[in-house]
Amino acid sequence: MNKDSNIKIYEVGLRDGLQLESKILTVDEKMELFLILQKANVDDMEFGSFVHPKLVPQMANTAEFYRQIQNYKNQENLTALVPNLKGLEMAKEVGVTSVNYVFSASDTHNQQNVRKTTKESIESLEYLSQFASDHNIKLNVTIATSFGCPFEGNIPQERIMNILENLLSYNLNKITLADTTGMANPKQVYQLTKEVITEWKNFNLGCHFHNTRGMGLANILASLESGITTIDASLGGIGGCPFAPGATGNVCTEDVVHMLEEMGVNTSINLDRLIQASHKLAELLGHELPGQVAKAGKSSKLYPIPKSTLI
Amino acid sequence: MNKDSNIKIYEVGLRDGLQLESKILTVDEKMELFLILQKANVDDMEFGSFVHPKLVPQMANTAEFYRQIQNYKNQENLTALVPNLKGLEMAKEVGVTSVNYVFSASDTHNQQNVRKTTKESIESLEYLSQFASDHNIKLNVTIATSFGCPFEGNIPQERIMNILENLLSYNLNKITLADTTGMANPKQVYQLTKEVITEWKNFNLGCHFHNTRGMGLANILASLESGITTIDASLGGIGGCPFAPGATGNVCTEDVVHMLEEMGVNTSINLDRLIQASHKLAELLGHELPGQVAKAGKSSKLYPIPKSTLI
Repeated sequence: MNKDSNIKIYEVGLRDGLQLESKILTVDEKMELFLILQKANVDDMEFGSFVHPKLVPQMANTAEFYRQIQNYKNQENLTALVPNLKGLEMAKEVGVTSVNYVFSASDTHNQQNVRKTTKESIESLEYLSQFASDHNIKLNVTIATSFGCPFEGNIPQERIMNILENLLSYNLNKITLADTTGMANPKQVYQLTKEVITEWKNFNLGCHFHNTRGMGLANILASLESGITTIDASLGGIGGCPFAPGATGNVCTEDVVHMLEEMGVNTSINLDRLIQASHKLAELLGHELPGQVAKAGKSSKLYPIPKSTLI
Repeated sequence: MNKDSNIKIYEVGLRDGLQLESKILTVDEKMELFLILQKANVDDMEFGSFVHPKLVPQMANTAEFYRQIQNYKNQENLTALVPNLKGLEMAKEVGVTSVNYVFSASDTHNQQNVRKTTKESIESLEYLSQFASDHNIKLNVTIATSFGCPFEGNIPQERIMNILENLLSYNLNKITLADTTGMANPKQVYQLTKEVITEWKNFNLGCHFHNTRGMGLANILASLESGITTIDASLGGIGGCPFAPGATGNVCTEDVVHMLEEMGVNTSINLDRLIQASHKLAELLGHELPGQVAKAGKSSKLYPIPKSTLI
């Protein structure tokens, strides 16, 4: 990678992170976090989702939260997840101008989430993209389980290529390949992203990784090697895995930013303030978070010389 | 990396891992672990250290432990850490045939550990290597803080190259570059290991990483890219960091093996049995370990389809 590269971080903690937490944060609590993230220059974020409040009560205050944050920054950088037209309509009602439509590359996983096959979810883009275009809403797509499905196992690379080909006719702002349950390995990540980038140079392509099996940062490294420049990450590494108690979740924003900055890659994010945001999040949730830099401090942090140490 | 590559894992859990645990394992407990590691085909390991028992009580039973394990496998694969001639003599007394001499690239860190400058530690190799050679003991060297010192900060690459040049005249079996407190980043790892491998092609060079800031597996990936084929790892990821409470320790053996096997890289280790060893270690120590694959299961593990899931 070039020393002068710039990587864009897409913060998903307020949505993908919080949606699995047992404690539901109030709008005021989310605002506390948001304001620290603002100071840390975290520009681009998924701030919530328009889904059924009974299914995801953690996101029930998404509309109210948006009304408070919309004046703080460029609205185009505030994205809401929508699973269907109903969600898109709700987003439009409160004035959201950027949405992320998520479906899964695995039919089984997609059926579980939205009661549709992958093909049916793609076909829905016909009216979703029309609606988005009619209301000047930027439409992004995330393809869940792109690197493996916890029910079906391996997802052939060819299937992802076919899905992407089917998405080409819609006016999409960005497409994100998501490793929803942390199954990807760096070799696989490099191969898939390299093939996609080689085939469609003009795609605005992002990657979304989980750290479930410890490979999160290694997978990011592999994706950057093939030319990816937008990376999802979640403050504190929250997000968990509904199937594996004790397993960690999304890649941790401050750990990602720390690695990149140490490598001389610019993210435009203020790491010290980001770590403050992570400490605030841990305080609000009332438990320790998986992220490691917030505990260990930056690599550049020096320690006083103790009286004795061990080898 | 070539799909057919083979990577050798050097297990350090019984030494670097256990030495920071508050619970001291008995010889019987260490034997329980050792026998599972045997079944998992973990061939090469650092089983203990010959240091002052008051300084590191966790290692006080190293000689007795060695007497029990020496008949189970090729003795050349059972390595003990020695900080000085006294340690080397103790190792020789019980018949150890492979030792690892550790000193630090940082003068400050080395002074803390062994009351010597780096130069003085290297000069000690004069009589250490003579003694090892006289008694048919394989001599390995680990250079601690090769990627940064918690007291001094950055360690210039030139300093590591100079240290290595000074080591060339001794008959060393292997030299390991250690990131003792988890400060390395993948770019730095690639640059340093690439330079060393380019300069001295015939060095038997290994790498030792900590996961203190989440970069452990990413750093391993970077080292493999430049041609490293021997990697230190610690069962369950134990090892901690004396300066950062809550921070994780060494890279976790089962997480490393899992990533490599998923990438098609052979380690000759039986991952399922290795995970059993990690569970046993957690049971013996009485606390959760940092390793993630032992909690989340392998990527290839499939789950039954639940009644409902979230996006």
